[in-house]
Amino acid sequence: MKILIIGGAGMIGRKLAERLAKDGGIAGKAISKLTLYDVVPGTAPAAAKGPVDIATGDLPAAGEADKLIADRPDIVFHLAAIVSGEAEQDFDKGYRINMDGTRGLLEAVRKAGHKPRLVFASSIAAFGAPFPDAIGDEFFNTPLTSYGTQKTICELLISDYSRKGFVDGLSIRLPTICVRPGKPNKAASGFFSNIMREPLAGEEAVLPVSEGVMHWHASPRAAVGFMLHAAALDLGKVGPRRALTMPGLAVTVGEQIEALRKVAGDKVAARIRRQPDPFIEQIVAGWPRNFAPKRALALGFKADASFADIIRHHIADELDGKIA
Amino acid sequence: MKILIIGGAGMIGRKLAERLAKDGGIAGKAISKLTLYDVVPGTAPAAAKGPVDIATGDLPAAGEADKLIADRPDIVFHLAAIVSGEAEQDFDKGYRINMDGTRGLLEAVRKAGHKPRLVFASSIAAFGAPFPDAIGDEFFNTPLTSYGTQKTICELLISDYSRKGFVDGLSIRLPTICVRPGKPNKAASGFFSNIMREPLAGEEAVLPVSEGVMHWHASPRAAVGFMLHAAALDLGKVGPRRALTMPGLAVTVGEQIEALRKVAGDKVAARIRRQPDPFIEQIVAGWPRNFAPKRALALGFKADASFADIIRHHIADELDGKIA
Repeated sequence: MKILIIGGAGMIGRKLAERLAKDGGIAGKAISKLTLYDVVPGTAPAAAKGPVDIATGDLPAAGEADKLIADRPDIVFHLAAIVSGEAEQDFDKGYRINMDGTRGLLEAVRKAGHKPRLVFASSIAAFGAPFPDAIGDEFFNTPLTSYGTQKTICELLISDYSRKGFVDGLSIRLPTICVRPGKPNKAASGFFSNIMREPLAGEEAVLPVSEGVMHWHASPRAAVGFMLHAAALDLGKVGPRRALTMPGLAVTVGEQIEALRKVAGDKVAARIRRQPDPFIEQIVAGWPRNFAPKRALALGFKADASFADIIRHHIADELDGKIA
Repeated sequence: MKILIIGGAGMIGRKLAERLAKDGGIAGKAISKLTLYDVVPGTAPAAAKGPVDIATGDLPAAGEADKLIADRPDIVFHLAAIVSGEAEQDFDKGYRINMDGTRGLLEAVRKAGHKPRLVFASSIAAFGAPFPDAIGDEFFNTPLTSYGTQKTICELLISDYSRKGFVDGLSIRLPTICVRPGKPNKAASGFFSNIMREPLAGEEAVLPVSEGVMHWHASPRAAVGFMLHAAALDLGKVGPRRALTMPGLAVTVGEQIEALRKVAGDKVAARIRRQPDPFIEQIVAGWPRNFAPKRALALGFKADASFADIIRHHIADELDGKIA
């Protein structure tokens, strides 16, 4: 089985590749080839038993998606995107990468004609305020960012291309990934991770919103779990509505900080500095806080058990178990 | 005030142009120029007092939308589309006209920078079964046709371009237009009108579905009324959710036939021939039947009073008051 990860050098792409290499297959089918595609070169996972192709390119460029699909991958994970803050500030770049890139991929798959499984990383930014207390599976998509608009459009395209039999696709709306390892990126949601990751590493972190802000989280481990579950799922059970909100944890920033205090102590929690930022506050105010993702739960997708667990997994996976 | 109608040779476009010519303006502002654009030449309304430009072209072709927007129209009505049956059978043509055409128009408007009012004719095909008994304003869009997908994508683009201040747009989801005058077109919904129009004109009409099929209707008069109301509306009241389901009448095919019998007599109603068509039945089964369009009603959009009235208006507007 050939697997292609678009966005294979990104954080989730890398973790997904590592997990695939460790597992050696998906749902009992061995991986014969793994391709990691991104704008910058990815890294072959150390545990990989078979060949790993590292490819770079510009997905929406003419002919690029066709090249990627030429060897007819059985499963395509499409995780590549311009993040929310950047897509908001560079309108053309956001539409080009996030919308045209995905459409080009779908057209390449349609031309190839082998109907692969496509797992698309969508986002809860597909929803825009005002919301009910917990957003149900049939609530409408009224994104308040260009990023959310682009993700919603891709969901619609994937459902239509799947309905027509050109691809066997599923869009999974990821919660905000927390704790996100590595350096801060341009995502407006970055602070949710910064205020956990930086203090655990002995650094100060800035909190740009109030502690009452509630948000919807999943760990990198959970996100990789969603991807693998989506890749193996019987989509006959899903039907024509090919976009699913993933389960997550609804917690306030205050609850995040309490969990940090509980897991890592007062000294670590004291490294968070409050510095309100109206630009971030305004974007976050339009974001969803809580969901009732019944369809995804019924289909077997699983969230993290607690926010303390999310922090513990970060310490285990990223910090070799050590807190600064 | 300059007005551009894209799809100006179509049925609603023509009626809208005639009404604008008769009224001479919108909300008290006089029309200085009216442009009717379409793939085939439109007809200047007889009552037009000012200049009427008749233009033809291929909207998604490079540079085409820029030419259209060059004289900075104050109000753009975008009614052009490949209809549902044809978009379903010609996938590329549907996406090119219905999605790329609209996007090109939005980009041209963004470049021009004058932020015109855009009224976009969307469709209840933005919804796909299963539905609640009456679809509320916050129900999700899961179209089951490529046409519905394209319309929903355009709605999302128009909301995002409006939010960014590039256009002042409103998507109005028209009910099925009934009684549609003229010749049958390729729309799968054509029979809803055929079974009224043809018998009234002394012709036999084919009914391809059962009499229990319920659907959501508005007359051409009502549709033109929606357009004009949308053009003059204070969109500050609408907010960032720039797609509205228009009010209509939920009636069954059986109730349509009863209304026809009441208005035009048994002899006319007897001209309907039952001949089930599985292709049409399957498409129609995925269509919505009834709505609760509270937002549009609160904003002052008005449906027809009864289906008998819809028939009477058709007889008055299209048949000079005479039934065959």
